[in-house]
Amino acid sequence: MTVTWLDLPDDTLFGVHNLPYGVFTTADDGRRRIGVAIGDQVLDAAAAARATGLDARLTELLAAPGLNPLLAAGRTAWTSVRAALTDWLTDPGHRAAVAPCLLPRAGVVLHLPFEVGDYVDFYASEHHAANLGRLFRPGSEPLTPNWKHQPIGYHGRSGSVVVSGTPVVRPNGQRKAPADAVPDLGPSRRLDIEAEVGFVVGAPAPLGTPVPLADFADHVFGVCLLNDWSARDIQAWEYVPLGPFLGKSFATSVSAWVVPLDALAHARTAPPARDTEPLPYLDDRGDAEPWGLDLSLEVRINGTLVSRPPFAAMYWTAAQQLAHMTVNGAGLRAGDLFASGTVSGPERGTEGALIELTWNGERPVKLADGSVRSFLEDGDEVVITATAPGPDGTRIGFGELAGRVLPAPPVPGAPVSRG
Amino acid sequence: MTVTWLDLPDDTLFGVHNLPYGVFTTADDGRRRIGVAIGDQVLDAAAAARATGLDARLTELLAAPGLNPLLAAGRTAWTSVRAALTDWLTDPGHRAAVAPCLLPRAGVVLHLPFEVGDYVDFYASEHHAANLGRLFRPGSEPLTPNWKHQPIGYHGRSGSVVVSGTPVVRPNGQRKAPADAVPDLGPSRRLDIEAEVGFVVGAPAPLGTPVPLADFADHVFGVCLLNDWSARDIQAWEYVPLGPFLGKSFATSVSAWVVPLDALAHARTAPPARDTEPLPYLDDRGDAEPWGLDLSLEVRINGTLVSRPPFAAMYWTAAQQLAHMTVNGAGLRAGDLFASGTVSGPERGTEGALIELTWNGERPVKLADGSVRSFLEDGDEVVITATAPGPDGTRIGFGELAGRVLPAPPVPGAPVSRG
Repeated sequence: MTVTWLDLPDDTLFGVHNLPYGVFTTADDGRRRIGVAIGDQVLDAAAAARATGLDARLTELLAAPGLNPLLAAGRTAWTSVRAALTDWLTDPGHRAAVAPCLLPRAGVVLHLPFEVGDYVDFYASEHHAANLGRLFRPGSEPLTPNWKHQPIGYHGRSGSVVVSGTPVVRPNGQRKAPADAVPDLGPSRRLDIEAEVGFVVGAPAPLGTPVPLADFADHVFGVCLLNDWSARDIQAWEYVPLGPFLGKSFATSVSAWVVPLDALAHARTAPPARDTEPLPYLDDRGDAEPWGLDLSLEVRINGTLVSRPPFAAMYWTAAQQLAHMTVNGAGLRAGDLFASGTVSGPERGTEGALIELTWNGERPVKLADGSVRSFLEDGDEVVITATAPGPDGTRIGFGELAGRVLPAPPVPGAPVSRG
Repeated sequence: MTVTWLDLPDDTLFGVHNLPYGVFTTADDGRRRIGVAIGDQVLDAAAAARATGLDARLTELLAAPGLNPLLAAGRTAWTSVRAALTDWLTDPGHRAAVAPCLLPRAGVVLHLPFEVGDYVDFYASEHHAANLGRLFRPGSEPLTPNWKHQPIGYHGRSGSVVVSGTPVVRPNGQRKAPADAVPDLGPSRRLDIEAEVGFVVGAPAPLGTPVPLADFADHVFGVCLLNDWSARDIQAWEYVPLGPFLGKSFATSVSAWVVPLDALAHARTAPPARDTEPLPYLDDRGDAEPWGLDLSLEVRINGTLVSRPPFAAMYWTAAQQLAHMTVNGAGLRAGDLFASGTVSGPERGTEGALIELTWNGERPVKLADGSVRSFLEDGDEVVITATAPGPDGTRIGFGELAGRVLPAPPVPGAPVSRG
């Protein structure tokens, strides 16, 4: 086991095997800087690079105000930087230079760690897709005929991606229950979450370059948590025939820390058995190590644990999603973000969205204060966390993905109240 | 009528009332520069700004390698820059300074004029939506129940937006005819176009700021032509339930010139009568000048005129689309692009997509060389053009939006042929 000169508890989720990247400022220094989480501290990466004499090109990547240059630099650079970080934090000879570059995590402000290119949201949990099918299209087959042949996804709004801690304002939108003759405009009454895992693209691929399964790790830098906030009433009324739009585009939250793919080597696991023959470009059955990942998620509302979604249960892996997304020649840019889709397991209490967890409000969840929720109320705080197996019995953490619901603003176009 | 000191034919589509913006390089100077089209020349805007002593802030906007800083600067800056351009090109006193900044348009290479933020594609022609409904969902109502209550749209892939002239490679993708038991992977057999009009967002709006109809011109900088290339077989198999994805994400072409909204003052026209009461935030009936635009499009395949789509027939205006897109609090960034959806009129020969024009291949179009097309063949070149009324009987042009179809690459995952 790699030992650090820092005094870390054995059960830290931010040990030397994790080393996730974020972007921070401090109260007395507003410059955005790349930081690496270690224990309950954050390492000012560029400061450490300078203090230790890291080579100029890698230092420049770490001195950027966001992760995009490092993302674009590709796997060789990622490996070199990670090796340097590990060296700095484990070799006591670096202690004198590196220790002054550590700040208490509690004292920094974390920002969106990268500029998002395209944001794609998939739909890769069979349990989630079947549950939503039953709820949105009662009387039809739960899964559409295409679902087991390809990872179904859609493009979301990258400009609405916000970092953990950003409040989420309840959206106004068109609402129309089946019994209503016409829609009205007002605050969503069915505000929901989707607990997901996000994949951050690093090395670009030009238009016309499909990325095969085997090249996944050359293009994907790391992993974050993602909450695809969803207004179910707006979504239900708008989504036929072109898919979700305003029901999702008001906010998508991501965790402040991006866990490098390299930190998840011990989390790799076989995906669940598939019952449909995949086309060759999606066929991972011959792969020595397909990209199933054993991440254990937890969802809390106002502190009450309401769900434990198991990422290992996802039908499609991120490698399959990337291969599918590019099979038509679509290119990749550093900062592209694609998400797994809601992580829902097969058992009750493992669903990643309230609409499933409460079965459309029929079985509300009970919170510690005795109140119940079918959907989110103003003031509710949702926190998603996750851990993964690391080496030697350690665990890798993703930090908190938190968001609090604020009330909707006045309805646009409505007469201003003079009350 | 404003007169220029340039020697322009009366029927030029790039007169002094147009002044569209683009980004160019020349064979002997690879720096990307902002250019303004005038007649068959292009004005190096930053060079002219320096030569005439334009104020430093506006000069800096024009000296950028792309339009984004100018877009972000907002309407006051746009008005000032346009006034300066008009002054330079009409006041003979500027001739000596400005004439050396003109280059022949034929000698420059045009580039994607702005960095695209989010790309949204709407679906605003009633004729197109009804045609597609009949073709994709036979036996159902042609229009979905939501269609006349809101401008239906979805997010597309901004990383796949390319400038006019960029070849379009036929995409590979999953194809499955209703009679097939399972899909296969291969080149799209039903490659189509969608002739559209794109709107380029300038001034940003933070998250949580709906943009009402009245503020449209404060946020939208200008207008371009857009071809939403579509692989109908891939789209048909994938699009339920989350909408179009790989059937569209391989390429979206835009014209190289962005026509400022100010150049279209004479093109404003009343939208067609609507038969459904709009919600207040979409209600433009009380507006003195709603944002219908009388643009006349033409679509050519290998030189043969195959369609004349009339933009004035669009049910939803761009102002309504922007109001809808932001009503839920979604923000805007400089460079966001939203498109009208396929422009299709009510008559035969005015449809903006081959699937409608040929009625799913039942009535192929005949080209000048005697060949017929149901969908596009490799080597076909599609050119979309448009004009709009300017002042005093003049016409405003948008330039050509051109793209040639290249053959699909080898199918990913297929055995390499050793023949």
